[in-house]
Amino acid sequence: MTSKASAPEPPVCAIERSLGVIGERWMFLILRQAHAGTERFADFEAALGVAPNILAARLDTLVRAGVMEKREYREPGQRARPSYHLTQAGIDLRLVLGAIQQWGDQYLPLIGGPVIARQNATTGKPVRVGFIDEHDRPVDLSDVSISAPIADQKP
Amino acid sequence: MTSKASAPEPPVCAIERSLGVIGERWMFLILRQAHAGTERFADFEAALGVAPNILAARLDTLVRAGVMEKREYREPGQRARPSYHLTQAGIDLRLVLGAIQQWGDQYLPLIGGPVIARQNATTGKPVRVGFIDEHDRPVDLSDVSISAPIADQKP
Repeated sequence: MTSKASAPEPPVCAIERSLGVIGERWMFLILRQAHAGTERFADFEAALGVAPNILAARLDTLVRAGVMEKREYREPGQRARPSYHLTQAGIDLRLVLGAIQQWGDQYLPLIGGPVIARQNATTGKPVRVGFIDEHDRPVDLSDVSISAPIADQKP
Repeated sequence: MTSKASAPEPPVCAIERSLGVIGERWMFLILRQAHAGTERFADFEAALGVAPNILAARLDTLVRAGVMEKREYREPGQRARPSYHLTQAGIDLRLVLGAIQQWGDQYLPLIGGPVIARQNATTGKPVRVGFIDEHDRPVDLSDVSISAPIADQKP
């Protein structure tokens, strides 16, 4: 019962707490765009084809959650306009985006293969997302368990 | 403009295609519960505190997307009831759930630390989610770039 929105305490499960911030389609798409370098409100709007009121509301939520930071920029002769920048918490969502992208490339592929890939920015070599053990060795997904919070487990 | 729901072609971006399947709070919570071993409709309903019509609609979407499989079970003297089981595509979402959980534990922590963790099912040792290069070595997040699809990039 910890998942009800009316619960006074934060959910015990970290997945559920995270979804309070990022658990909505537009949130992910805004974050994807931010990771691709987009910063200006107008550029988010143009790239995503999203209504400005929806975009503004979602960006505000991301700012309140500490994932993005709002600043202003001013072009010569123009009024100040808002821009949005990833915080460290936002930058660290790259792993979540990478995991989603990798899954989509495998199970919802486009004809012709992936258009984009995760890559090492220095070497240009592809990187993947995976589980890693305490000795920095990859762990097969079938060897990893993720349990629900104790509070949610049924007898 | 590839992100408009009315677009006749699938989105170029794998993140966006994936969100068509999993991009909603209940989807993630149902999947989390499935990864924790829940299979019966009634058990999903009890664990998540979700209205049965919403749960049924979301489970149907996951079945149509090939992430879960619907079966039936029958207890002695009872009618057949539905149960839902992860397919390989659903099992592979463990990495996405693990990445979200890890982020939540870091940036939205509970007092007292994480209640649950990702662990090696055999050794019981904790595992983390991370980027891995072609030599099976961990790659620092700051060295990884994820770009938006070409179609979305602004000049």
